[in-house]
Amino acid sequence: MNKDPRSYAEAGVDIHKAESFVTRLKVSARRKGHERLWHASGGYASVYPVSENQGVAMTTDGVGTKLLLALEKNNFEGIGIDLVAMCANDLICVGAKPVAFLDYYATGALDDRVSDSLLSGIIKGCDLAGMLLVGGETAELPDLYDHGHFDLAGFAMGTVTRESLITGDGLAKGDILIGVASSGIHSNGLSLARKIIGADNPLRDDLLIPTHIYVAPVVRLFSEYPGTIKALAHITGGGWTNVTRPNDSLGYTIEDHLPVPPALAEIAGSVPAREMYRTFNMGMGLCLMAAPENVETILRVFDQSGFEARPVGEISSGKKAALTVKGAPGAEREFDL
Amino acid sequence: MNKDPRSYAEAGVDIHKAESFVTRLKVSARRKGHERLWHASGGYASVYPVSENQGVAMTTDGVGTKLLLALEKNNFEGIGIDLVAMCANDLICVGAKPVAFLDYYATGALDDRVSDSLLSGIIKGCDLAGMLLVGGETAELPDLYDHGHFDLAGFAMGTVTRESLITGDGLAKGDILIGVASSGIHSNGLSLARKIIGADNPLRDDLLIPTHIYVAPVVRLFSEYPGTIKALAHITGGGWTNVTRPNDSLGYTIEDHLPVPPALAEIAGSVPAREMYRTFNMGMGLCLMAAPENVETILRVFDQSGFEARPVGEISSGKKAALTVKGAPGAEREFDL
Repeated sequence: MNKDPRSYAEAGVDIHKAESFVTRLKVSARRKGHERLWHASGGYASVYPVSENQGVAMTTDGVGTKLLLALEKNNFEGIGIDLVAMCANDLICVGAKPVAFLDYYATGALDDRVSDSLLSGIIKGCDLAGMLLVGGETAELPDLYDHGHFDLAGFAMGTVTRESLITGDGLAKGDILIGVASSGIHSNGLSLARKIIGADNPLRDDLLIPTHIYVAPVVRLFSEYPGTIKALAHITGGGWTNVTRPNDSLGYTIEDHLPVPPALAEIAGSVPAREMYRTFNMGMGLCLMAAPENVETILRVFDQSGFEARPVGEISSGKKAALTVKGAPGAEREFDL
Repeated sequence: MNKDPRSYAEAGVDIHKAESFVTRLKVSARRKGHERLWHASGGYASVYPVSENQGVAMTTDGVGTKLLLALEKNNFEGIGIDLVAMCANDLICVGAKPVAFLDYYATGALDDRVSDSLLSGIIKGCDLAGMLLVGGETAELPDLYDHGHFDLAGFAMGTVTRESLITGDGLAKGDILIGVASSGIHSNGLSLARKIIGADNPLRDDLLIPTHIYVAPVVRLFSEYPGTIKALAHITGGGWTNVTRPNDSLGYTIEDHLPVPPALAEIAGSVPAREMYRTFNMGMGLCLMAAPENVETILRVFDQSGFEARPVGEISSGKKAALTVKGAPGAEREFDL
C-alpha cells in the first residue's frame, strides 16, 4: 500500500473491483423477480410493493473505516449516529419516510462500555430519523475480530406510497440543485482521510463528527409540500458523482459552493481537486432537485430545521450523466465528474 | 481461553454478557414507540404495521464463526445459503412470508472468487426462501479485517396480515410439538464445535453443511391450510431453549427424538447432555406447534417437500417456560431447559 496516498485506490480501496462485484451482484440478482419492485430514483433503496399503493423501501449500510478512528479515539457514540444516518439519508432519496431500523453488531469480545455507547448513538440517530429501533443482532465472534475490533451494519425500512415515490423521471433542464451542508466528512473516504490527516493533526478529531441526518426537513416537505422535491442525491461513497444518480439522461452543473469543512480542506492540500469531489462530500451532504418556483419553500423548511441550504447549480444541457463542477475551491479550471 | 472447552462459555462466548447487552438494548429501544409494533410470537422478527391489516416483518442475522470454517475449507457458497436461512427461518416464525433480502459483506480485500461464491449461495438461498435479493452493501475495509477475513450480515423482510400473524397466544395444553430435521449443525454453536471437532477429524467437513431453509412447506401451510400451525420455533442460538419462546406461560415436553447428526453426536462425547441441548439443534432445526387434529396435514406437507418431520412431544402441564427433555440420546435422566 502506498504510504503517501493521493487517491482512494492508493489508500488500499479498489473502487473498480468493488464496482465490478456490486455490478455483478445487481445483474445476477435481477435475473428473477425484480420487475416486481417499484422503480425508484438512484438506487438508494429498493422499493417492494406490499399492496397496490403501498411500498416498503429497504437499504443497508455500514460506517466503513470510521470504525477504526472511533477505536483510536475511544469514542463510539458518534458512529452509532453515523450508522443510522447512512441508511436513513438513503431512504429519503426514494421518497420514503424512515420508520424502522435494525443493527448488526459483531465483535471479538463484548465490552459493555463500547456497546452501551454505540447503542446510545444508534438510539439518538433513530430519534433524529423518526425510526423505531425494532431489532438487532449482537454476535460475539472471538476468532474473527482482533481484540477490541468490531463491525457494524445497519438496515432501515421506510414506507412510501406509489404517488409519493421519487423516480427522477420528472427532472428537466432548468431545475435547481439545492445543496445542504454536511457536518464534516460524514462516513465516506475515511480510508484516505485517515492516512492524510495523521494522528498528530488536531483536525483528526473532526473526522469523527457524526453524519447529519436530513430526515426531519425532508419528511416535512414530503408531507406539507408534496411534489416540491423532484429528486434527492445523498452524497455518499463516490462523492459528487452521486448527483447524477437520480436521472442519468440529464446533465448537471454546480457553480456555487457550500463551505468546505476544515478537515476536507486540509486533505485537498494533498489530493487533486477532481479526486476530492469523486471521494468526499466537499461540504454538501445532500443535494435536492426542484423546479425554480419551489426553491424558496425548500430553503425555508431547511432553515427552520437548522440546516444550511442554498441553490448551488442546475440541471443543464451539458454532457448527459455528468456533473460539471465550476469554481470549485482549489481547482484551477472546471471539470466533469 | 480454555483449550479443552466443555461449554460455550469455555469456548470464549459469554452468553451472559450477550444476553445482558441484548436485554438492555431491547429495554432501551422499547422506551419509545414499540407499542406501535404488532405483538408477534417469540421475538424472532419485529412486525411493523404499514396499514390497518398489512404488516411487515423484519429480522437480521449473521452466520457467526461458521465463516472461519468456510475460510479454512476455502468453501463459501454454503455460508451464503446459511445467511439467508438464518433470517428466513426467523420470519416464518411470526407467520410472515419472506419476500426480500439484503446482504452486508465487509472484507479486508475483495476477492472475486470468494465474493462470487458467496453471492451464488445467497442467490440459491433466496430462491429456496422465495425472496428477491433486492440490495446489499459491499464494503472494502483494508485495516479492519485481517487478510482474507470478512464478515456477513443479512437482513430479511416478509409480509404478514393481521389475521395471519402468529402470536403464540392460541397455544394450549395438549397441542403437539412437531420436530423437523436439521441438515446438521446449522449456524449455531460453531465456536464450540470447531474446538472439539479438530482439523484432523473427518467430521469437520460436516460442520459446513448449509442450514435447511424451511420456508416452502411452511408458506404452503400458511396459504393452503391457514391456522393449522399455531406457532413455530426456529432452533437457533440457545438450542432447544428456543422451544419455549412462542409462549412462556406454558410447559413443554419432548420425549421423541429425530436422529442426531454425526457431528453433533461426536461433540456430545465431550459435552454434558444438557449443555448440548442448550447450544445445538440436536437434529431438530424447526419445531412446529399444532392441535392434534392438524398434525397429519402438517406432516404430509413436509413429507411432500422432502423434509423429515415427526411428532416429538407436546405442550404439557410441566413447569412454565421450561422444556422437559426425556429420553435424550446420551442423557442418563430427563432434564429441564
